[in-house]
Amino acid sequence: MQHLASFVGGCWLEGRGAGTQLHNPATEEPLALASSEGLDLAAALDYARNTGGPALRSLCFAERGTILKGMAGALQGARDELLELGMRNCGNTRSDAKFDVDGAIATLLAYAELGAQLGAGRFLVDGEGIQLGRSPRFHGQHVCVPRHGVAVHINAFNFPAWGLAEKAAAALLAGMPVLSKPATATAMLAQRAMQVMVEKKVLPDGALSLLVGAPRDLPALLCAQDVLAFTGSGDTGERLRALPNVIRHSVRVNVEADSLNAAVLGPDAGASGDLYELFLKEVVRDVTQKAGQKCTAIRRLLVPAEHAATARDDLAGLLGNLKVGNPSDEDVRMGPLTNAAQLADVREGVEHLGAEGRLVAGGSKPPLPKGYFLSPTLFEFAPGAKADAVHAREVFGPVVSLLPYTENPAPIVAKGGGGLVCSLYSEDAAWLEETVAGIAPFHGRIYIGHPKVELSPGPGTVLPQLVHGGPGRAGGGEELGGKRALAFYLQRVALQGSRPLVQGLAKAGTPG
Amino acid sequence: MQHLASFVGGCWLEGRGAGTQLHNPATEEPLALASSEGLDLAAALDYARNTGGPALRSLCFAERGTILKGMAGALQGARDELLELGMRNCGNTRSDAKFDVDGAIATLLAYAELGAQLGAGRFLVDGEGIQLGRSPRFHGQHVCVPRHGVAVHINAFNFPAWGLAEKAAAALLAGMPVLSKPATATAMLAQRAMQVMVEKKVLPDGALSLLVGAPRDLPALLCAQDVLAFTGSGDTGERLRALPNVIRHSVRVNVEADSLNAAVLGPDAGASGDLYELFLKEVVRDVTQKAGQKCTAIRRLLVPAEHAATARDDLAGLLGNLKVGNPSDEDVRMGPLTNAAQLADVREGVEHLGAEGRLVAGGSKPPLPKGYFLSPTLFEFAPGAKADAVHAREVFGPVVSLLPYTENPAPIVAKGGGGLVCSLYSEDAAWLEETVAGIAPFHGRIYIGHPKVELSPGPGTVLPQLVHGGPGRAGGGEELGGKRALAFYLQRVALQGSRPLVQGLAKAGTPG
Repeated sequence: MQHLASFVGGCWLEGRGAGTQLHNPATEEPLALASSEGLDLAAALDYARNTGGPALRSLCFAERGTILKGMAGALQGARDELLELGMRNCGNTRSDAKFDVDGAIATLLAYAELGAQLGAGRFLVDGEGIQLGRSPRFHGQHVCVPRHGVAVHINAFNFPAWGLAEKAAAALLAGMPVLSKPATATAMLAQRAMQVMVEKKVLPDGALSLLVGAPRDLPALLCAQDVLAFTGSGDTGERLRALPNVIRHSVRVNVEADSLNAAVLGPDAGASGDLYELFLKEVVRDVTQKAGQKCTAIRRLLVPAEHAATARDDLAGLLGNLKVGNPSDEDVRMGPLTNAAQLADVREGVEHLGAEGRLVAGGSKPPLPKGYFLSPTLFEFAPGAKADAVHAREVFGPVVSLLPYTENPAPIVAKGGGGLVCSLYSEDAAWLEETVAGIAPFHGRIYIGHPKVELSPGPGTVLPQLVHGGPGRAGGGEELGGKRALAFYLQRVALQGSRPLVQGLAKAGTPG
Repeated sequence: MQHLASFVGGCWLEGRGAGTQLHNPATEEPLALASSEGLDLAAALDYARNTGGPALRSLCFAERGTILKGMAGALQGARDELLELGMRNCGNTRSDAKFDVDGAIATLLAYAELGAQLGAGRFLVDGEGIQLGRSPRFHGQHVCVPRHGVAVHINAFNFPAWGLAEKAAAALLAGMPVLSKPATATAMLAQRAMQVMVEKKVLPDGALSLLVGAPRDLPALLCAQDVLAFTGSGDTGERLRALPNVIRHSVRVNVEADSLNAAVLGPDAGASGDLYELFLKEVVRDVTQKAGQKCTAIRRLLVPAEHAATARDDLAGLLGNLKVGNPSDEDVRMGPLTNAAQLADVREGVEHLGAEGRLVAGGSKPPLPKGYFLSPTLFEFAPGAKADAVHAREVFGPVVSLLPYTENPAPIVAKGGGGLVCSLYSEDAAWLEETVAGIAPFHGRIYIGHPKVELSPGPGTVLPQLVHGGPGRAGGGEELGGKRALAFYLQRVALQGSRPLVQGLAKAGTPG
């Protein structure tokens, strides 16, 4: 069986021992083994810091952008192979796999383009120069310079290609070297993506490393100039943030964690017509794409009480008709969950929701004799009924709960405790204004569905131009958002002194 | 004896029991008692969230700026009384007390002016609108809205007026209510400042509360929409960041902690002339102002090896001639440390430095029979000598260590592990560029001393226009910096949808 090697210290190295087995989740067939045992993680971090860091800092933004373009080209050249791995190792339909792989390529290209725009500078100039005294001689200027550490990225199993690419794009463009740790269950795709980028020699030595298998004590080795970006469960995010070295050295940590994203049907949308149809279409796509294993997937539906029964019946019909099975079958619309542990966790979540709500479609009964499958599942709740689990537990699968509302639903949405995205389906400007005012502080993104916006990707798609992250339960992090993504990897420093000297020092920067 | 009351829930309330005794540190005379025992802290936070929050959010930036102007006016009206309290309760010389009180007033006025500039909006519009698809219909816009919680500010003993004001200015202007907790040892000044602002009725109900005495479990009561800003020791900062509720709910925490600020005499500055004289003058001021109890005070001096002996002798002379004593005596240039505990801590630090370096001036021997005094103290180190304590221990008093250097000193400066400010005294552009490149990622501010900049306040003064904070040991935080200060109190959210709807929602904002 294939042993997945890590790319650390500029070499491909296999860990000791058997490690963890990776499977095809549709067939339960073992595919590969991943181990990080015996690899010298401290040396891997030092190689990134001491070889990749200076190399990246010596380049300007445009040159770093060219690296990202090269990475995108390498992935594009291996696209079919990567899609096939997505279908085989991740249980993706071909459409799901494209969402991941093409998303990775598009995000790299978006940041390559940003690099070209930022041009010849090696750091960002932040804001205008400031006169600090009565005389214009005394001058201040903020600049944002790359940190001298390594960026460790710990990614989730659901987007092995995109997760690797979107985090690396921002760090590399900012001028920080990256050590990326894909989730083990779906590491085949991330590892192959790394291989093709190494084969194409698009990266400076030490700029990007990949650690396959368990992270071991990697996060405990980080120091003050390092940063840690994590996507995954809230529990793991908490453990990382509580590490003594992270707290002692003020290691910057960005967490993307649980999110109980809501979709709200506005009071004006009715239970028919374009807006209502858009709502149905986007909910069904969002709940079933990647079998609901998206941090941005809709978990809660808020529907005016008078339309709740119609929406319930329509959604139950649409979800119930969707073909679930092995993604190698072209008719299949939804594949399995990623592994046995995820299936068990989602089934447990379904039990929790079922203790308070009424099961309308799906449920935890296995729809197929083999593989980690779950049918698309819908719960409904009576108006004002107890729904504690709905607002507290992220069930990371094709599972959604319908909650009727009678007054402005912002307080119900806010019960989620902070989320990545909320979608609103309404054309009533006054209602939108009131609702947005109530929910905005609790979200990183608010998507307003509109039937006249052709080709809108729906709320579940993260675009490189907009920030991705959310307060509270969602981890309090922020990624992407165009240039905003660079801030995490940069240290802002105020330069203060005589105007010609300060202006001279800022000259090697680029207006940010 | 006076019992200091807290202003919480819109009322002045005294805590139970004797609480903690406050002293005149020059005479050891007891002045007042402070206790928070028995106060309902959860109710105090809820009052701020539910009364102060909506009141502030309903106001536009210009109106919030008017509140800050009113606060500045109230402090200005009581300035003499506040200065007298600074001299009596904080051991300040009159000049030290002005630094604190006038700094508070100036910072409030700077943010009042910013409020006027930001005008009629109630939140910030962040960046340009973004076309998200092929059609301009699909549109994105980031906005930054006030969080719906309370900002808890835990301040340090060294700046009771400025600490209260600079943190409150940013939060209130952003639209968040504040509960401020001054350090107990010097709480008389903060409490009187609060009294005069309440008497002048410049604040909406619930917008600003003051808790005097121990914080008890206040930080443990914070939730996802709250924020916590702390200035003080690194150890306390670590404890706050490790609180389970802070980690679980992603409570935003800003820490301003230890900082081993360095002043570097450039190789071109020589050991005479204007630049060298400026270096001496600013070092002496910075080491002795507020008896060295400033987070930005110079702790480490890096001097070219060939000038080390001259600089040592000159500084020893200047520091040794400085009159130390009760600030009520007008000849006195430096007062005592804040209390017995601080004096003991600083003496311990002096012992640590003395184990590796040579004492040139001062030392831990009491210069006066009564009061918490320490003489200005200078250590010197041989080139390349072991100086671990110099780079690891912040001695929070009038104590400084001189380290000779022979090569570019950036690596020595970086040994401090992250600091608030580093000052460079040089006019050599190439040397400055190399040194700034080496130290910038480790600092929040770099001050370049220049004899032609008249009225420069030196590196130790924090200006409202420039960020204040630093990575690593300094806590990884960021305050002030003009508009940048608001970000901590705002949630950035991407609005995404049809262009007219998104533009309509952003209309109530102000270009940030």
